[in-house]
Amino acid sequence: MKAVRVHEYHADPSIDEIPEPQLRGPLDVIVKIGGAGVCRTDLHILEGQWADLQNPDLPYVIGHENAGWVHAVGEGVTNVAVGDTVILHPQPSCGLCAACRAGRDMQCENAFFPGLSNDDGGMAEYLRTTARACVKLDPSTDPAGVAALADAGITAYHAVRKALPLLYPGTTAVVLGAGGLGHIGVQCLAALSATRVVVVDRNPDALALARQIGADETVVADGGQVQAVQELTGGGADVVFDFVAEQGAEMDGWRMTRPAGSYYVIGYGGELRIPTLDFVAGEKNVVGNIVGTYTDLAELMVLAQAGKVTLHTQRYPLDRAVDALRDLEAGKVRGRAILVP
Amino acid sequence: MKAVRVHEYHADPSIDEIPEPQLRGPLDVIVKIGGAGVCRTDLHILEGQWADLQNPDLPYVIGHENAGWVHAVGEGVTNVAVGDTVILHPQPSCGLCAACRAGRDMQCENAFFPGLSNDDGGMAEYLRTTARACVKLDPSTDPAGVAALADAGITAYHAVRKALPLLYPGTTAVVLGAGGLGHIGVQCLAALSATRVVVVDRNPDALALARQIGADETVVADGGQVQAVQELTGGGADVVFDFVAEQGAEMDGWRMTRPAGSYYVIGYGGELRIPTLDFVAGEKNVVGNIVGTYTDLAELMVLAQAGKVTLHTQRYPLDRAVDALRDLEAGKVRGRAILVP
Amino acid sequence: MKAVRVHEYHADPSIDEIPEPQLRGPLDVIVKIGGAGVCRTDLHILEGQWADLQNPDLPYVIGHENAGWVHAVGEGVTNVAVGDTVILHPQPSCGLCAACRAGRDMQCENAFFPGLSNDDGGMAEYLRTTARACVKLDPSTDPAGVAALADAGITAYHAVRKALPLLYPGTTAVVLGAGGLGHIGVQCLAALSATRVVVVDRNPDALALARQIGADETVVADGGQVQAVQELTGGGADVVFDFVAEQGAEMDGWRMTRPAGSYYVIGYGGELRIPTLDFVAGEKNVVGNIVGTYTDLAELMVLAQAGKVTLHTQRYPLDRAVDALRDLEAGKVRGRAILVP
Amino acid sequence: MKAVRVHEYHADPSIDEIPEPQLRGPLDVIVKIGGAGVCRTDLHILEGQWADLQNPDLPYVIGHENAGWVHAVGEGVTNVAVGDTVILHPQPSCGLCAACRAGRDMQCENAFFPGLSNDDGGMAEYLRTTARACVKLDPSTDPAGVAALADAGITAYHAVRKALPLLYPGTTAVVLGAGGLGHIGVQCLAALSATRVVVVDRNPDALALARQIGADETVVADGGQVQAVQELTGGGADVVFDFVAEQGAEMDGWRMTRPAGSYYVIGYGGELRIPTLDFVAGEKNVVGNIVGTYTDLAELMVLAQAGKVTLHTQRYPLDRAVDALRDLEAGKVRGRAILVP
Repeated sequence: MKAVRVHEYHADPSIDEIPEPQLRGPLDVIVKIGGAGVCRTDLHILEGQWADLQNPDLPYVIGHENAGWVHAVGEGVTNVAVGDTVILHPQPSCGLCAACRAGRDMQCENAFFPGLSNDDGGMAEYLRTTARACVKLDPSTDPAGVAALADAGITAYHAVRKALPLLYPGTTAVVLGAGGLGHIGVQCLAALSATRVVVVDRNPDALALARQIGADETVVADGGQVQAVQELTGGGADVVFDFVAEQGAEMDGWRMTRPAGSYYVIGYGGELRIPTLDFVAGEKNVVGNIVGTYTDLAELMVLAQAGKVTLHTQRYPLDRAVDALRDLEAGKVRGRAILVP
Repeated sequence: MKAVRVHEYHADPSIDEIPEPQLRGPLDVIVKIGGAGVCRTDLHILEGQWADLQNPDLPYVIGHENAGWVHAVGEGVTNVAVGDTVILHPQPSCGLCAACRAGRDMQCENAFFPGLSNDDGGMAEYLRTTARACVKLDPSTDPAGVAALADAGITAYHAVRKALPLLYPGTTAVVLGAGGLGHIGVQCLAALSATRVVVVDRNPDALALARQIGADETVVADGGQVQAVQELTGGGADVVFDFVAEQGAEMDGWRMTRPAGSYYVIGYGGELRIPTLDFVAGEKNVVGNIVGTYTDLAELMVLAQAGKVTLHTQRYPLDRAVDALRDLEAGKVRGRAILVP
Repeated sequence: MKAVRVHEYHADPSIDEIPEPQLRGPLDVIVKIGGAGVCRTDLHILEGQWADLQNPDLPYVIGHENAGWVHAVGEGVTNVAVGDTVILHPQPSCGLCAACRAGRDMQCENAFFPGLSNDDGGMAEYLRTTARACVKLDPSTDPAGVAALADAGITAYHAVRKALPLLYPGTTAVVLGAGGLGHIGVQCLAALSATRVVVVDRNPDALALARQIGADETVVADGGQVQAVQELTGGGADVVFDFVAEQGAEMDGWRMTRPAGSYYVIGYGGELRIPTLDFVAGEKNVVGNIVGTYTDLAELMVLAQAGKVTLHTQRYPLDRAVDALRDLEAGKVRGRAILVP
Repeated sequence: MKAVRVHEYHADPSIDEIPEPQLRGPLDVIVKIGGAGVCRTDLHILEGQWADLQNPDLPYVIGHENAGWVHAVGEGVTNVAVGDTVILHPQPSCGLCAACRAGRDMQCENAFFPGLSNDDGGMAEYLRTTARACVKLDPSTDPAGVAALADAGITAYHAVRKALPLLYPGTTAVVLGAGGLGHIGVQCLAALSATRVVVVDRNPDALALARQIGADETVVADGGQVQAVQELTGGGADVVFDFVAEQGAEMDGWRMTRPAGSYYVIGYGGELRIPTLDFVAGEKNVVGNIVGTYTDLAELMVLAQAGKVTLHTQRYPLDRAVDALRDLEAGKVRGRAILVP
């Protein structure tokens, strides 16, 4: 089959002909890929930023945002059958450790992350995953249309879902960064709460789109954004969702958070420097977030299938993976680039 | 192997020589039984009360409260290995349905219940269960000493665990019924909260024991128990745990519950008759409870291994199962009867 | 001033000329009534159904659903000033007992309920209440347009708000009874969650309206409603909100509730008869609800001022109170009857 | 009356003869002081560290940790009467703002802080506070014996109480700093949970005491404390309570926190510097804490009156306030210094 493989860092991946993956264990599932999202993390992999953390043997196939159709199942698989349309949780979990038993899939002690850890990903015709990663979809769903929800979507949904008890009527949520994740976050907030949503971004076009999909107010990040949010909220937001969290956005986000409020970190790259007195005097919190649970993905697909969360996609044939990566790097992709084998 | 089998209802089970169970699926686990608890439900099975609900093919092996050592594992089992000491959740779950993914094992769509549903139970030398039922114990644990926690224990723990957010200092919890489950409930309340614990039972000896293991107050159920609890609590308890829930205890329990309080049903056999106005005027709740989650059992074993929850056991060789059942029926068992193969 | 007073039970109230209420304590507030809702409870008061429970000295002024403008304040009042537009929580609370300190206003040990307890209500030109009952509104709000939210609205909102953690995407909520409270409940569910909403009522016109304001599905209560809900939901709803809870609706509601689900009682008049086994086997709950907290009312007013919750009102001058009560009894009121002094 | 007043910063306070405080508002309460705790914050006030933040007019009376007997009450006070024994929440709240209505007293918009803000404190014979600060005690309670719970106690209790849902059996809590607050924290953990408690401090004597009152393990902070905790916990604690949060303890605390765990800041003085990636990769949280709610104090007094939380006190007559402050500064106070008028 054809697959997008990284042979060395700081170089383009190549489209290789490699053997199809095979079932190895009783819970394995082989999925015929219908769409594989292209994510900024793929650029970081190519730059070698994940080399030490994940240490995959090269060459390997990237692509961690996948949907398609079940092609083969191991003998212990009972939740999906050959031919089912599925979206894949990016991190297959074991189902047996303490974290899995409590529904906290991302803390699974035995998980792997195809396309990131030392396991082939989904920029290919077929992918090996496991039963516990498969969310079954309505058979008529177009996998390429939803693949981006497998990673970008679940990540935004997870943070919003965790914060819902804090976002009752009369509160304000700030969304920092109106890119792909931020747009999903805004739609989730509108679908799941009646909180007032304030979106902050440098790009006025992204803010215009945000207003169409649920933002109540928008603020251009032109240097006065912290003060603007303070004024709009009378002292800060109850929850700030930071989809940027680098280049100073992280300290902005903290300062936009009201006393007893919470600052949710979803993006990364920056550094927080906060006196412990500020945590005490304001009784404020910083909340970490990573991807989401299987249940988060299943719930998000309910919203997607009801048309409450949508994401613009820009499709490329698998052969043009390098173009897709370059377009992403150049800021030329609107919404999410999806490779279609 | 030897096994205690029900051949017909309204008759004693017999000790039969039958083949050992074999692995059938990749997640199956064969356990060598170290101890199997004898439960009132076993008497109900023999009386045919579960025949319609579970409809097992006779003859079959009873025993749903089991602990022992892993004897064989399927190829997909990664959490336990041959030789491990284990206690078994009574209802193996699939790990793939929505309830399992949220940690709500008892609502698993694909579960079975060995010794109750149409699957052989643990009053035998060996039992077939699955990986997801196995809680690994310290190797030195004596299975016969803890087996009763697999069903009686988890059930009491589950109800207490759910109620903990309601049981802050200054509140009162009532425990109705100071038998095996009630005694475990009292110990769990003492270990996990600082609520005041009031225990109600007809039997003064059971109440005396309750005081030794954590009850702050006891009330003899002599007809004046509702008024006694009302007076002790100034208008009712915040939470009432009803381990009886038959023969009028259920209406007592409801009446002992204060406004905005919750009545937890754990026993069964009776009927609640409550005007809807009483739910509204008092903003009171009735909370159902069934067994517990895998996580509940794992947490309870932490308490047990720390010596915070103990239960008196009375051991019988497997051959004397009928004696154990008769002793239970005659009220001659102190604590829990355990069959040891 | 003019006031609607009950002189004897089983007779029409009369419009009397009585002295205006005066400040008695430092936290008292006198409100000039802008609108007073006419509630089915007022009919029950006239029928003497509340005589024993509340035992008011006759004659007294009824009316417990009030909004207007602050007319005078005691020396300790700091949250509102003369001239402010306010809606009134129906049960002024003390702010000092344990329940008040935890935000559970309805369990206040020292509360009273003007128009129901032995205190004059709001079907008059002026009402005495306290600072802790006043929710300040945008000055331009028409009190008669929102008064019905003070009791009918808060009651529906409170039940929905409590249930929100259970109503994530993929769940179903059933609303039993598409009258005034039910319609507010449907709007609250649509504003605050993405659950699927199924509304059940005998009246097809009420169901048609329900679909316009947020119901996803409707079921005519023609005798087959339990089975219809079972089929729509694949075994029952996650939460059933019963705004009827009499004449058999209460047992319907319980049967429409899925395993591990919750049946919320809001209406009253009927009786639940449920074997304790059904609570255990299904791990189901019955949840009581009464009115709501001050915070509930404040949050609901945020929804109302954003146009997310609206209620049709039919206005009557205060002199025509008896006509309003008769129209309500005869089923001729669409939405809520409001007396305007 | 006699009172300890600050006349200028960087100088000893003096014992002055000043008029007794008088009732000013209907909710005011005058308390005859039975004991006033001497806190490190008092040293900081004398050093001028709070001058800018609170800006009190000098001279003023310090002392924010008070208990005594009600001496006079305003006309609106209903929860306490003259002669009642009371402990005082340090920050009287208004009872009318949104935070107060939700039970979050520390976020009250209209609060003041006697002895810290521009209001006389309790190192005197009498103190003016309000009804909402008074927690009524058993009449026989010795105020001097419990006064330290009014600030040190409530602060430790509040943090532990918030964290309880995270501290189920099988988890580990680390307590950084085994001084007065830490010792109360350890006792609260032991009374309210079955979590394993690991205490870290430089002082072996403080650790020995910690073991007597509930610590399961202790670690001497000799430079290897982060690694020691990592080893004891297999990768970090579920919750770290940092009662130090300065001089590097804050980064230690963060590093001792396991993935998906929470680091609770209670002390202050240091600075956290954390890459946003560390919040994401580990899904870890930092949780701020300030003093506690009225309900926290009331619950803590239940524990105290049951003997589950105790604190050693060292008493000084009011005249010797300067000696008490000097002893505190010199590290010569065991437990808490209490001034007794």
